Amino acid sequence: MVLAPLQTSPETLETLVTGVNLLWVLVVTFLIFFMHAGFAMLEAGQVRSKNVANQLTKNLLTWSVGVSVFFVIGAGISSLVGGGGFSPAFVAENPNDWVGWLFGAVFAMTAATIVSGAVAGRAKLRAYITYTFLLAAVIYPVVTGITWAGSYISFGGATFHDFAGGMIVHGMGGIAGLTAAYVLGPRMGRYNEDGSANVIPGHSLTFAVLGTLILAFGWYGFNVGTAASVFVFTDGSLQLGAFSYVGRVAMTTTIAMAAGAIGAAAVAWAKTGKVDTLYVANGLLAGLVGITAIPDTTSWWGAFLVGGLAGAQLPLVFNFIEKRLKIDDVCAVFPVHGSAGVLGTLMFPFVAAEAPAGGIVNAFIAQVIGVVAIAAWTIVATAAVWGILKAIGQARVTPEHEQEGLDVSEHGVETYPEFGSGDSVVADGGMVSENVRTDGGSKDD
Amino acid sequence: MVLAPLQTSPETLETLVTGVNLLWVLVVTFLIFFMHAGFAMLEAGQVRSKNVANQLTKNLLTWSVGVSVFFVIGAGISSLVGGGGFSPAFVAENPNDWVGWLFGAVFAMTAATIVSGAVAGRAKLRAYITYTFLLAAVIYPVVTGITWAGSYISFGGATFHDFAGGMIVHGMGGIAGLTAAYVLGPRMGRYNEDGSANVIPGHSLTFAVLGTLILAFGWYGFNVGTAASVFVFTDGSLQLGAFSYVGRVAMTTTIAMAAGAIGAAAVAWAKTGKVDTLYVANGLLAGLVGITAIPDTTSWWGAFLVGGLAGAQLPLVFNFIEKRLKIDDVCAVFPVHGSAGVLGTLMFPFVAAEAPAGGIVNAFIAQVIGVVAIAAWTIVATAAVWGILKAIGQARVTPEHEQEGLDVSEHGVETYPEFGSGDSVVADGGMVSENVRTDGGSKDD
Amino acid sequence: MVLAPLQTSPETLETLVTGVNLLWVLVVTFLIFFMHAGFAMLEAGQVRSKNVANQLTKNLLTWSVGVSVFFVIGAGISSLVGGGGFSPAFVAENPNDWVGWLFGAVFAMTAATIVSGAVAGRAKLRAYITYTFLLAAVIYPVVTGITWAGSYISFGGATFHDFAGGMIVHGMGGIAGLTAAYVLGPRMGRYNEDGSANVIPGHSLTFAVLGTLILAFGWYGFNVGTAASVFVFTDGSLQLGAFSYVGRVAMTTTIAMAAGAIGAAAVAWAKTGKVDTLYVANGLLAGLVGITAIPDTTSWWGAFLVGGLAGAQLPLVFNFIEKRLKIDDVCAVFPVHGSAGVLGTLMFPFVAAEAPAGGIVNAFIAQVIGVVAIAAWTIVATAAVWGILKAIGQARVTPEHEQEGLDVSEHGVETYPEFGSGDSVVADGGMVSENVRTDGGSKDD
Repeated sequence: MVLAPLQTSPETLETLVTGVNLLWVLVVTFLIFFMHAGFAMLEAGQVRSKNVANQLTKNLLTWSVGVSVFFVIGAGISSLVGGGGFSPAFVAENPNDWVGWLFGAVFAMTAATIVSGAVAGRAKLRAYITYTFLLAAVIYPVVTGITWAGSYISFGGATFHDFAGGMIVHGMGGIAGLTAAYVLGPRMGRYNEDGSANVIPGHSLTFAVLGTLILAFGWYGFNVGTAASVFVFTDGSLQLGAFSYVGRVAMTTTIAMAAGAIGAAAVAWAKTGKVDTLYVANGLLAGLVGITAIPDTTSWWGAFLVGGLAGAQLPLVFNFIEKRLKIDDVCAVFPVHGSAGVLGTLMFPFVAAEAPAGGIVNAFIAQVIGVVAIAAWTIVATAAVWGILKAIGQARVTPEHEQEGLDVSEHGVETYPEFGSGDSVVADGGMVSENVRTDGGSKDD
Repeated sequence: MVLAPLQTSPETLETLVTGVNLLWVLVVTFLIFFMHAGFAMLEAGQVRSKNVANQLTKNLLTWSVGVSVFFVIGAGISSLVGGGGFSPAFVAENPNDWVGWLFGAVFAMTAATIVSGAVAGRAKLRAYITYTFLLAAVIYPVVTGITWAGSYISFGGATFHDFAGGMIVHGMGGIAGLTAAYVLGPRMGRYNEDGSANVIPGHSLTFAVLGTLILAFGWYGFNVGTAASVFVFTDGSLQLGAFSYVGRVAMTTTIAMAAGAIGAAAVAWAKTGKVDTLYVANGLLAGLVGITAIPDTTSWWGAFLVGGLAGAQLPLVFNFIEKRLKIDDVCAVFPVHGSAGVLGTLMFPFVAAEAPAGGIVNAFIAQVIGVVAIAAWTIVATAAVWGILKAIGQARVTPEHEQEGLDVSEHGVETYPEFGSGDSVVADGGMVSENVRTDGGSKDD
Repeated sequence: MVLAPLQTSPETLETLVTGVNLLWVLVVTFLIFFMHAGFAMLEAGQVRSKNVANQLTKNLLTWSVGVSVFFVIGAGISSLVGGGGFSPAFVAENPNDWVGWLFGAVFAMTAATIVSGAVAGRAKLRAYITYTFLLAAVIYPVVTGITWAGSYISFGGATFHDFAGGMIVHGMGGIAGLTAAYVLGPRMGRYNEDGSANVIPGHSLTFAVLGTLILAFGWYGFNVGTAASVFVFTDGSLQLGAFSYVGRVAMTTTIAMAAGAIGAAAVAWAKTGKVDTLYVANGLLAGLVGITAIPDTTSWWGAFLVGGLAGAQLPLVFNFIEKRLKIDDVCAVFPVHGSAGVLGTLMFPFVAAEAPAGGIVNAFIAQVIGVVAIAAWTIVATAAVWGILKAIGQARVTPEHEQEGLDVSEHGVETYPEFGSGDSVVADGGMVSENVRTDGGSKDD
């Protein structure tokens, strides 16, 4: 290519910077979107085979309904609460503003999809979709409105710090899930009459671990990607925006993830002498959640500490939820996303590589205020929605449908028509009817 | 690093631009390649467990054989048809030209692999590979030659518009699949003597949904990535190439995908009162296919409309294909890729954010001409190849092999030797022979 | 944005270059990390259902323990051996140095995780973790210390060439795996008293092929990503660093992958008349391994040749290992990673597009020296560690635990409690006890 002699004008430089920044945000947005595959597999693996299709459908519709609602309403509510007026996403000055919207949307949908793991096995599909609609339209946008958009939470020179959504996304989702699971009540057979708990193991650890590793892959987009601007202009000169510390984010995310798996494995081993696979997987995720609020500020030893504690608390908190609170949080979303998110958010000032603005005490108080505010709003809003649904008899499927499995009752499908206990298959008799359903089956009528 | 004082020469700027453009194309190419994992899982999940390994092998060999053929022959045919002379890919002026070749190749292989879903469960492996060879060498290159390479299709100032392959890749693949499935005839037991259809459900909805979400992830590369140049030089100044509208592509792709899932879910629910998981998944994909020809021009409401219609037509077209045409399109590749691709391509002028070049009427006529031309060529070429294979008795496995499953007959393997109806396992007796096959098994002899 | 008039100073240019280089390294690092999901699925699919959770846990802990150790010790050992003094990763001058560390770490963890496939089904978890610790701390760092870090291996003007770790990562991992499998001895029932072998098929080809395609996706990061610097400054002017040949790397990686699948398929077909799915998948991977040392220098025909031979040798070498050496390399890690890595490394001078430095003969000798040095160190160190573990009775689980499966004995879980031979489930009787385990189950006690 032959170029005319060029002066590198400010416009040229701005074009370069805009292009590279867009490229980066798009790539990490794709990675974060892919976390939906991770959630789908993680949750599917942790439910009974008779409820797998229900879990998969909820994940598909969480994204589909949620992102549509967030486009039309949710993003506008966030800007409204944050003090920027109601500016819904479908009104864009410049088409490339939609890149920023999509970047925000994949975070919102992460919060939404976490809830589905807690209410597995008994929530009505229409109830879940109703809640997802409201979460994407209002509940989550209020949380981002008072934090990322409005920066309202501060104390004595310290501002609530949540880099990538350890509390805003994961903490919020985990707390919402626990609240919804509490309102819904446990699955049938989960608790005995004397109050003791029964284990209902998921149908496939392989899918659960696959989901875990897809999530960890996407999490690099989530945390490192939140360093959203490769370049910024500061005082008229080009600077490395969030990329000035991106190496710290990459390192702390990695170390906390590793420490989370090790922490959970160690506690499981100490308790039972065996290393429960699901605890290791969920511990890895808890380590990721733990660091997500603070990957940009935490020291390397702090990353080990935060991740290790986030992993170690998982079996203990899961046990507490199950045995004491007697809440049936099917996919352990509170220990993984809720308590781990709170833990990391609160540890912010104590593990930072440099002293936080406002000093350690003020910073801690600001973190506490943020956690309490987000938790309170999430609990109230979630309990209200599910409470109303329950009051009108729309929250939960019938006992017959729950026994039969939600795949058949809500979706008219069998996830594994050739495998499993296969009651319906066996009842049908010989080979041909085992392999072929006569017309009139659920799929195409 | 200490730098010598530099003038930002045109060469420096061009180096910057070349590097960033290459980086972007490589990243999205990798994402598009990953769609093969999505197709493999989606298709594997939709076939019987006795035919899974066959489906997986076809996917692996589609890529392997196809990309080799496209390297040696196909890319050259495309350039020849497009008027640029036969310039096969192995002759590259500059090694970095191969990046462009690979970017084209992952689109070509997407078209190729779609076909495997339609002919599942009865096509001979050698027949399928033969067709893949010819698709990669000639059939698909002719399609790109008359469109992207040659831009031959236009009408009254309007040129056929297909941004990322909604018709060229997906429409073509879906039509080819339907044609091949028609020539092959249905699987045994798919239709009764009175012409009514039997449902043969796939073996794993979990794999099918995993495949769906992997495909959606890769699709961001497919659509957004087609905005291939981050930067271009226009009139000697640096411009944001395709990135000037990349935000629109990202938004419309997202919205259409969401609307596709919702549209299919709504129709399924209206028809049966239940939300069929596979329809939701395939509807999401149909929404993506629908927007793929036009993500760069469509308005936000148009994205809802195109995606919603693409999803809604899925159950209806599937039903029509199955019940009226009585074609056994196993993985619904025509409703997902074919009719959805045609739909979106034809809707181009009606949903565009700005009036299309040549006006709405001329633009619509150009789209119709393009769709008809691609469809006609694809049908003729595909029917010829499969017709000849059928005439010489090489298209389809024997009824015995079909009954037994293609995994055993074509590949000598069992996909799940420990699960399923497990006839062979049960027949072997006790624990040891259940777990261990004596030497002489298919794998290493 | 209004910009102050800017001069593009050297600092501005360096900022641009640093940002884009970091962006690229981060993206490919994430892709390489994702290969852990690929290894987990590939290996899980190739083991019995009773050992799946064990395989998954080993993969999770390989990453978690390994990356922690590599952070604290391993990277420092590599720099020490390479002549740069002991500079452990937790000491970073600039946080962005951690990006480089993470980029090295994902290569290290790839080598580590390969071993788990060879020792499947009988190694004690604690033995495997001990070996992983030592591999990440010392064994692998010594290999990179004498090669990438120290460049000690050369002969007559030729330096040992291993672009992305065909020998350093994959060859090393495959040889380590074979050594460990030899020391451990075969699984029970793998060989009969007369020395003939029994096939123990894996439990899911679907997971195995999914893993294959995830690995291939990540491999683009592995090979193309090793072109780590988009831009470099040479003689004070900006150049396209490794991106000057990145197109060659992308092309050769693609072609060798394709040729590997075809080569293995052809040999399988020639031997048995059937196209074994697992051979095709592993052949594709062997093609990738084969090219990994030399994607930057190999001609297009050389890529076909290297990939095709790497694929073709797979069934033959697997057969030799199984039948002659009688080593139970469960997931065929030596034919896939070991012999294919050695093959490609040694073919370097014969398939290069341009004559190698030092001439073909010297270059070949340098390659031989490198292969022998790495293999010898790996065999000695691995045999020593596993030999000591075996001598103290800590290498292998008891025969009872092996019979029962490692999932129950080491992890206290069932991977598929509703599927498979399902002895425990059947024994429990009716529906409720089939679906619900009473409290006191392994998971939460």
